[in-house]
Amino acid sequence: MNWSPNYPRRVPAQRPAGFEPRAPRWSAAYESPMTAMTSDYIAVQTENRDDPATAAFLRLVESSADEASAHAPASSELLHTTDADGTWNTVFVGYWTDPTAHARWFAQSPLGTWFRGIDPVAAAFGAWREVIEVPLERLETVYSSPTREFGLAACAGISLDPITSNGYFGAARDRMPISAIDSLDAPVEYPRRAGSTSSRGRRLRAELGLNVCAIRSGQYWKGATGEQLEDYESRLEPYLMRGMAYLASNQETTGTLSLRILRSGTGGEERPTRETSVLGYFRSLDDLESWASGHPTHHAIHQHAIEKNRQYGDDRTVTTWHEVFVLPESGIFEYVNCAPSTGVLPFARQLWALSDD
Amino acid sequence: MNWSPNYPRRVPAQRPAGFEPRAPRWSAAYESPMTAMTSDYIAVQTENRDDPATAAFLRLVESSADEASAHAPASSELLHTTDADGTWNTVFVGYWTDPTAHARWFAQSPLGTWFRGIDPVAAAFGAWREVIEVPLERLETVYSSPTREFGLAACAGISLDPITSNGYFGAARDRMPISAIDSLDAPVEYPRRAGSTSSRGRRLRAELGLNVCAIRSGQYWKGATGEQLEDYESRLEPYLMRGMAYLASNQETTGTLSLRILRSGTGGEERPTRETSVLGYFRSLDDLESWASGHPTHHAIHQHAIEKNRQYGDDRTVTTWHEVFVLPESGIFEYVNCAPSTGVLPFARQLWALSDD
Repeated sequence: MNWSPNYPRRVPAQRPAGFEPRAPRWSAAYESPMTAMTSDYIAVQTENRDDPATAAFLRLVESSADEASAHAPASSELLHTTDADGTWNTVFVGYWTDPTAHARWFAQSPLGTWFRGIDPVAAAFGAWREVIEVPLERLETVYSSPTREFGLAACAGISLDPITSNGYFGAARDRMPISAIDSLDAPVEYPRRAGSTSSRGRRLRAELGLNVCAIRSGQYWKGATGEQLEDYESRLEPYLMRGMAYLASNQETTGTLSLRILRSGTGGEERPTRETSVLGYFRSLDDLESWASGHPTHHAIHQHAIEKNRQYGDDRTVTTWHEVFVLPESGIFEYVNCAPSTGVLPFARQLWALSDD
Repeated sequence: MNWSPNYPRRVPAQRPAGFEPRAPRWSAAYESPMTAMTSDYIAVQTENRDDPATAAFLRLVESSADEASAHAPASSELLHTTDADGTWNTVFVGYWTDPTAHARWFAQSPLGTWFRGIDPVAAAFGAWREVIEVPLERLETVYSSPTREFGLAACAGISLDPITSNGYFGAARDRMPISAIDSLDAPVEYPRRAGSTSSRGRRLRAELGLNVCAIRSGQYWKGATGEQLEDYESRLEPYLMRGMAYLASNQETTGTLSLRILRSGTGGEERPTRETSVLGYFRSLDDLESWASGHPTHHAIHQHAIEKNRQYGDDRTVTTWHEVFVLPESGIFEYVNCAPSTGVLPFARQLWALSDD
């Protein structure tokens, strides 16, 4: 069930007349009424994984994210990523189905208290926080298999329902309830900021405008062996990386405000976890769609994924999924003593520095 | 019609069993689907009304708010207020039923361009902006008469429907759709900031937390004559002012983050306009309710208003109304070269200063 209003359409659907999807897909359904969904990304940025700040961060996560702790996330994960300049980021993401619980958690948990208390001048590390909080009508999800719950779908009270609004360009938009009455255009532009941002030694909020589109898109191939494993590693993953490299190299023209390729786990595992996800921010849903429908790098990913789903059917051991959010105005994008290229800093419309008085 | 979901209740309603209201009331209804409502307050702060900055501001409003201008507000008003320290504030408020139109208007209109461009160091005046933008489920309205459209109700596509959810304490909460599943508690506290904020010469954003409650509550007695005029001026208005003075003198204990008594018009009218409204921000809806249900100063206002409605019925020439919003996290509260006591500055949880690099 979706607790958003079922608006009578005044913006046409994207679905072609008579279209029937060729592959089954699933989407998050909400078992009890909910008003908003929150994901809170909090990270520590260090030169490498062995930095003592990383270990300290992981201890804070442990005492803040377990189910027994007050206002705990309904689901949480640890991820890591290396920035273009080689900086190591250890990333916590928590999901909440109750915005008040989330706000209380950030106010009271060891991780929130730590984040607010970092002195940007004295800290020997960087830290950042990006909060995605949207009414349900501003989010949509899709999963290629219902056998495991990814991202927000791992929250209690959320199940996976089979859908038929998939397999055509524009399906993501059609799945987002608000799209029936709002075209979700970007009201403002995001020119790249001139020069390098003085982000070291400071606590900064980056301001973005209305309708920025956030996507977390994931791949999971832990169960893949033989031919499917070989195919993932030699074909699908390279296609995916080529697509991401294209976006990262053409941020202005594609409207890509930030793009991170995250691997699940802390990076301290004996072998790399077979699960990755991409966290991206686009100027608008339209920009994300333009790449998806118009660029060969996405066609290669999309066609290959569909082909393999049809080839293996229920035996497919590679799962792909995404969750897309179109943000209200003025979310929280906060950077403490970070590298100037971190997150959306290079495309912030305005930067605000924490003031002590 | 209300385009918010009609949630099955898990938070009990406040309405007493069998309750029937003694006086008729009306509430805003949305003729076509809407997702969010925006009010944008933009003001210039000067020593007195004759300051040239006021006249310049009024010209900007004129070129930004008329219906023919691009992305114009669906309704707008001019108001004015004098702060406790005697500072004069000329206030524009615009209402939008489309958040993208609102964002485009602020990006492109003369008034928005002026506000963004003010140099806080060089300016000979102060300026502030407070943006209330909420999904429909986080707002409720009530009007004692349907004969004139006040506040957001003046937007095209909004009409006034008679209601029966009025006349008991907690009715405002019951009228807010989200209250069926969310108790809208304040997750954080707002201690008064130590010392005086260095707000002169700077552009600051004041940060508040989730579920701050904004109210605009209005009085209109233009048509009142004789006994009803006398009653308004000698009884209801003094009761109202006593209530406001109590809140303004007890901000910490009542959770009042800001309170302004606004008079309609620019103050340049030959005689004072017979229309006032109060713009207040409270820590939470609960704080507003506690004053309304628990304090003699509100009982005096409430009882008197009900008594006069019953006495005069359809002949009542004094209209009272309010619109209440419970805000998502991180709205926009921006102050440029303002007095330190302006708006929510004294209770901001954090202050952020605009950075040039």
